[in-house]
Amino acid sequence: MSQTRFAAVDWGTSSFRLWCCGADGEAIRRHHSSKGMFHLRADEFAPYLDGVLSELGESEDIPVVVCGMAGARGGWMEAPYAPAPATSDDIASRIVLAEGSRHKSAILPGVSLVGDKRFDVMRGEETLIFGALSLGESDGIFCLPGTHSKWCRVADGAITDWSTAMTGEIFGLLSRQSTLSDFCAETKEAIYSTTAFERAVVEALRNPNQLTHLLFSIRSRSLLAKEEEAQNMRARLYGLLVGCDIAGVRFDLSDNVTLVASEQLGNAYQTALSIAGHSSTLIDTERAALAGLANFAHRIFEI
Amino acid sequence: MSQTRFAAVDWGTSSFRLWCCGADGEAIRRHHSSKGMFHLRADEFAPYLDGVLSELGESEDIPVVVCGMAGARGGWMEAPYAPAPATSDDIASRIVLAEGSRHKSAILPGVSLVGDKRFDVMRGEETLIFGALSLGESDGIFCLPGTHSKWCRVADGAITDWSTAMTGEIFGLLSRQSTLSDFCAETKEAIYSTTAFERAVVEALRNPNQLTHLLFSIRSRSLLAKEEEAQNMRARLYGLLVGCDIAGVRFDLSDNVTLVASEQLGNAYQTALSIAGHSSTLIDTERAALAGLANFAHRIFEI
Repeated sequence: MSQTRFAAVDWGTSSFRLWCCGADGEAIRRHHSSKGMFHLRADEFAPYLDGVLSELGESEDIPVVVCGMAGARGGWMEAPYAPAPATSDDIASRIVLAEGSRHKSAILPGVSLVGDKRFDVMRGEETLIFGALSLGESDGIFCLPGTHSKWCRVADGAITDWSTAMTGEIFGLLSRQSTLSDFCAETKEAIYSTTAFERAVVEALRNPNQLTHLLFSIRSRSLLAKEEEAQNMRARLYGLLVGCDIAGVRFDLSDNVTLVASEQLGNAYQTALSIAGHSSTLIDTERAALAGLANFAHRIFEI
Repeated sequence: MSQTRFAAVDWGTSSFRLWCCGADGEAIRRHHSSKGMFHLRADEFAPYLDGVLSELGESEDIPVVVCGMAGARGGWMEAPYAPAPATSDDIASRIVLAEGSRHKSAILPGVSLVGDKRFDVMRGEETLIFGALSLGESDGIFCLPGTHSKWCRVADGAITDWSTAMTGEIFGLLSRQSTLSDFCAETKEAIYSTTAFERAVVEALRNPNQLTHLLFSIRSRSLLAKEEEAQNMRARLYGLLVGCDIAGVRFDLSDNVTLVASEQLGNAYQTALSIAGHSSTLIDTERAALAGLANFAHRIFEI
């Protein structure tokens, strides 16, 4: 028999991650798919969720807590942003109960930053950060690398400030659809923590203002350089972007950075941060998501 | 009767520009199309050129001089790069006579830069630069904005050094195929020399190391800012990229910059250079191309 007490969902732009959790928040079953917000119309979210839970054999009285882009305008149902600084209480107090599902479903809001000429948004990352805090991480700078890498300042348990770099998205566009693509195709070569990656990070950290110029060097090196210097241009592309990402952070990184990331991205950023002279601690994304969602489930559903 | 003495062709990645020229190099007829290198197989260049000249009523004894990507590997026929520093004599002495056309067709080589860890290439821009020089411009820094913006140092009539920024290509990718596209769609609003463009240039010049972060601000501003600050995000995107392009130039721009550009791009770069405190002179691309190609035609075909 199922011992599931609630389901936790991280519903992003391009992925859907669901965990069926027991009373202590431990994952009993999990389901991952590419059914993110980009692949669903607003009226398709509820039936998709119901279908997954039904296939997993879960009964209708299992409540669901959802973070991420499902709460964006154009997602399942808009959960308006909590303004920064935001604590986990601020998030929990602004949940939106979604319609259309057989399950009681609470959507967590994202956080918005409206400062002096400074604007930013997050949806989902707040839950990972509060999850990492509940796992024992403390105040300071958090980095969540990905399609849109977030650099966040956490003080007194609240998310107070952050900025977002389009690192992963620009990497995807340039490696797949640009005049650099021929030189950056996916191969069996590793791209993270390779010499080509590390050299590119060094170059980008040295001249981060030259990013648009450095990127073209992938083409000219491939055409002109000796073999050794023209190897693994995909790693070079990612290294240039990650180096500029780090160089562009407007927070002081001299204290330890908490990286919330998958193993691959986490290793890449840890390597790059170390080249820049900064120490970091790596927390697995999935662990942080689960911990964050479980905390909200306990609070919202009084499980 | 036709008074054409030769045809001049600037055959780029995405465009084909042909002029039928009289004895003094003046354009008598012109033909522009989108039949660039990306749209033609190697064996399609010659028939396409012959077809255009035949439609224009030109006889087979009209010789043709070609600059640009038609001479790249994968183009019509490879014209190996002249190594920098390169004078117009170096270019003229390395022409390649192309095969397959009914017309005697000379393809001009590009120029390659192989320095200490520094590599770059150009194809076509050298002809525009030598054209601008023949129109009276003098040594110094030349900027040729576009898909790939070139910043070139010219000394003693030779192209000695340059770097390339992927400004136009990144603008195209982000405005058409990214999570910023919704906010950057083409509209009737002007993008060049607008307030939104100018403000973005100022921001980028102030923090060019933050490019990947500044780009995301297009999304967050569109979602959160008051109407005035969220207007014309397409102009903001281009302004951020042009500002970083200029900030990344490794040459001293304190002397006058010679801009070789279309009117629109020329005005945008002239505005941005002026915000950065630099003066510039604008030479029309087509005029420079025609002057450069005519000079080579005179020399090669002894017209």
